[in-house]
Amino acid sequence: MTVATEIDRDEALDIPTLMRGIGEAAKAAAAELSYASGATRDAALLAAAEALEDTVPAILDANAADMEFGRAKGLSAAMMDRLMLDAGRVGAIAGGLREVAAQPDPLGRVLAEWDQPNGLHFRKVATPLGVIGVIYESRPNVTADAGGLCLKSGNAAILRGGSESFHSSGAIHAALVAGLRAAGLPETAIQRVPTRDRAAVGEMLAMPGLIDVIVPRGGKGLVGRVQSDARVPVFAHLEGICHIYADAAADPEKARAVIVNAKTRRTGICGAAECLLFHRDFLAAHGAGVIGDLLDAGVEVRGDAGVQALDARVVAAGPEDWGREYLDMIVAAKVVADVDEAIAHIRTYGSSHTEAVLTEDDAVAERFFGRLDSAILLRNASTQFADGGEFGFGAEIGIATGKMHARGPVGAEQLTSFKYLVEGNGTLRP
Amino acid sequence: MTVATEIDRDEALDIPTLMRGIGEAAKAAAAELSYASGATRDAALLAAAEALEDTVPAILDANAADMEFGRAKGLSAAMMDRLMLDAGRVGAIAGGLREVAAQPDPLGRVLAEWDQPNGLHFRKVATPLGVIGVIYESRPNVTADAGGLCLKSGNAAILRGGSESFHSSGAIHAALVAGLRAAGLPETAIQRVPTRDRAAVGEMLAMPGLIDVIVPRGGKGLVGRVQSDARVPVFAHLEGICHIYADAAADPEKARAVIVNAKTRRTGICGAAECLLFHRDFLAAHGAGVIGDLLDAGVEVRGDAGVQALDARVVAAGPEDWGREYLDMIVAAKVVADVDEAIAHIRTYGSSHTEAVLTEDDAVAERFFGRLDSAILLRNASTQFADGGEFGFGAEIGIATGKMHARGPVGAEQLTSFKYLVEGNGTLRP
Repeated sequence: MTVATEIDRDEALDIPTLMRGIGEAAKAAAAELSYASGATRDAALLAAAEALEDTVPAILDANAADMEFGRAKGLSAAMMDRLMLDAGRVGAIAGGLREVAAQPDPLGRVLAEWDQPNGLHFRKVATPLGVIGVIYESRPNVTADAGGLCLKSGNAAILRGGSESFHSSGAIHAALVAGLRAAGLPETAIQRVPTRDRAAVGEMLAMPGLIDVIVPRGGKGLVGRVQSDARVPVFAHLEGICHIYADAAADPEKARAVIVNAKTRRTGICGAAECLLFHRDFLAAHGAGVIGDLLDAGVEVRGDAGVQALDARVVAAGPEDWGREYLDMIVAAKVVADVDEAIAHIRTYGSSHTEAVLTEDDAVAERFFGRLDSAILLRNASTQFADGGEFGFGAEIGIATGKMHARGPVGAEQLTSFKYLVEGNGTLRP
Repeated sequence: MTVATEIDRDEALDIPTLMRGIGEAAKAAAAELSYASGATRDAALLAAAEALEDTVPAILDANAADMEFGRAKGLSAAMMDRLMLDAGRVGAIAGGLREVAAQPDPLGRVLAEWDQPNGLHFRKVATPLGVIGVIYESRPNVTADAGGLCLKSGNAAILRGGSESFHSSGAIHAALVAGLRAAGLPETAIQRVPTRDRAAVGEMLAMPGLIDVIVPRGGKGLVGRVQSDARVPVFAHLEGICHIYADAAADPEKARAVIVNAKTRRTGICGAAECLLFHRDFLAAHGAGVIGDLLDAGVEVRGDAGVQALDARVVAAGPEDWGREYLDMIVAAKVVADVDEAIAHIRTYGSSHTEAVLTEDDAVAERFFGRLDSAILLRNASTQFADGGEFGFGAEIGIATGKMHARGPVGAEQLTSFKYLVEGNGTLRP
């Protein structure tokens, strides 16, 4: 395998025609998938898991080519780690597919059922969305995770991974196709864009008749571009500017532990806390302890005057620190007069992703829950729980902050639509 | 009141600035509405109903101005009838608001609730969508129906009615504002675009940060323009090309009655049947009776050769008759070999709105229900049941054929989103 021929623009390809063909094949496959049984879809997932394990050497060879490309391109150590596969990681990817297979079928669920006085019997039944386009960056496992979730929910997938993981994704995709083939499902149910040409992304965003929804997975640059350019709905979050409000009635021990966990457990995930809002009474009584914990853990604290007064190590926060996603060992912190000021701050600077209130006062918690409209609101728990697995959804295709259709961690259930099935007995409308 | 000054282009107005102001006011009102209690929202609806009844003379004066404008413009009798209000019709509009008020609160519903082993308690709770833009044509009652449903579901509304009903809508809107005021809600919770300038519609379609969803109500021209130009999600149906498949195992008496009802009860609604697909055995045994019923009822039947052979009055169908929405006393009809051919025809020519299967054979019904993906599928019942009221939803803001978020008759429940409320006890993510 050679990396010498990698190019960003592939002049030999007619990208619009290529993508239209992929879209049409996906639409046709989606129609078949929509009535394939849950057992058949699960069989394909299990066969894909097996194919992954059977082709570990080929996958690692492909990954070696990507790693060589990455080294030549000068990728950071963190990026290289995201890119890297070994037998253990491939096994984990296969395990993920088996977990998805073991979940209940999201299709055919009766979401509501009722009778009308004229004898009509109504059922609202879950159906697939159709064709899902997934645009992602360097992690090759997304190929299997996203493809598997789409298949579980009866949706055809068009996967466009980052150029860094091009070969790895290709090898993983081959295993997914083997799974589809083994189960007798159309191989085009999960397609991968077979070029690194960036024009393919633009085409995906502008295929409203062929792609029903786009899921971008990656940094703010990618998500922002998809959100602004897509002609179809997008399930995504641009940022996770997660706030924690420590109320006057917060339990200090719980608060210290939750705040440190929310900031430091992992700083690079969208559920990491980025801004702390302290009730002035809490700050006066317990602020020094909390801030000290964070500083001792190596966090840079950027505080307003009230927070700065607690510890000489606190840096002065500037206006740019409010509403900022650090994704790093840095946190903004400020004093507020009460829960309403915290709510007002979050409404102004939040990203509708995840916020937490720390309080033993039910009325305060109710106000925080009622007056904020983030996808996830927590009480006395770490914002790092913003994750489909932690919600019990199994795998997630991403976290959405929009209010249309999908919200919060998007698992297989949210990748469905519905139809109404109505049964009568020669029933006429008067 | 004068009609002499009506113009399509209002040069005196800065439409982008006007619409931005309306959008910003709506967004601010939506934030307040999102935590107003259900009792307050219902009080506003009831007060609006009362205000409508208290201002009947003013509403009828305004309507007289619209009728004069309509006559001068040469509107058809059908259009004039849609436009016309009298005390009875105003009373019915008020009654509609009271019915919406009497419905259960769509907000705050716990859509799901569960615990995780770590002690976290999860609730998925219904929330408003935000700001809903409604663009409609001549019926002035839509002002109250759409405004009322948005208010019931905690959403701010921006209403843009047709120019023919400009004054009537204004007078009805004034009653809605009186209701909001009486209940202490922001008067900008239901706004009306105060100009006939068509540029306002273009602005509404391009305000993604301020309008969350657009609902177009009207003919194909309006809906098509909104669907192609909107930068925000659209809940709509472009056409209702409803099919009925009469299977070999259809009960002939039920079939005759359902087909005549589905075509002739009202021809101008989106649930009216437009195309009949007859299993060849059904046609041979019972086709002459069904076709005779339709012809005797005054329906023009456009058939393929098999249908034409049954009755000399049947006209030959051309290729343009498949997939056509007549909204008139005309129906297309053809012979198919079996349910699969019917399904294939509907997949090619349908509009994903409503289709019916007439059969006593459960396996055929299951195949029809499973392999088609229209918003509404009926068995042995008239397609004219495609209506929110008939579903038991109370009022509907429209019928949607898309698969994203809302589908089928869109009542107050589908005008909601959700958020996750998670409660812990100092819970940390390991």
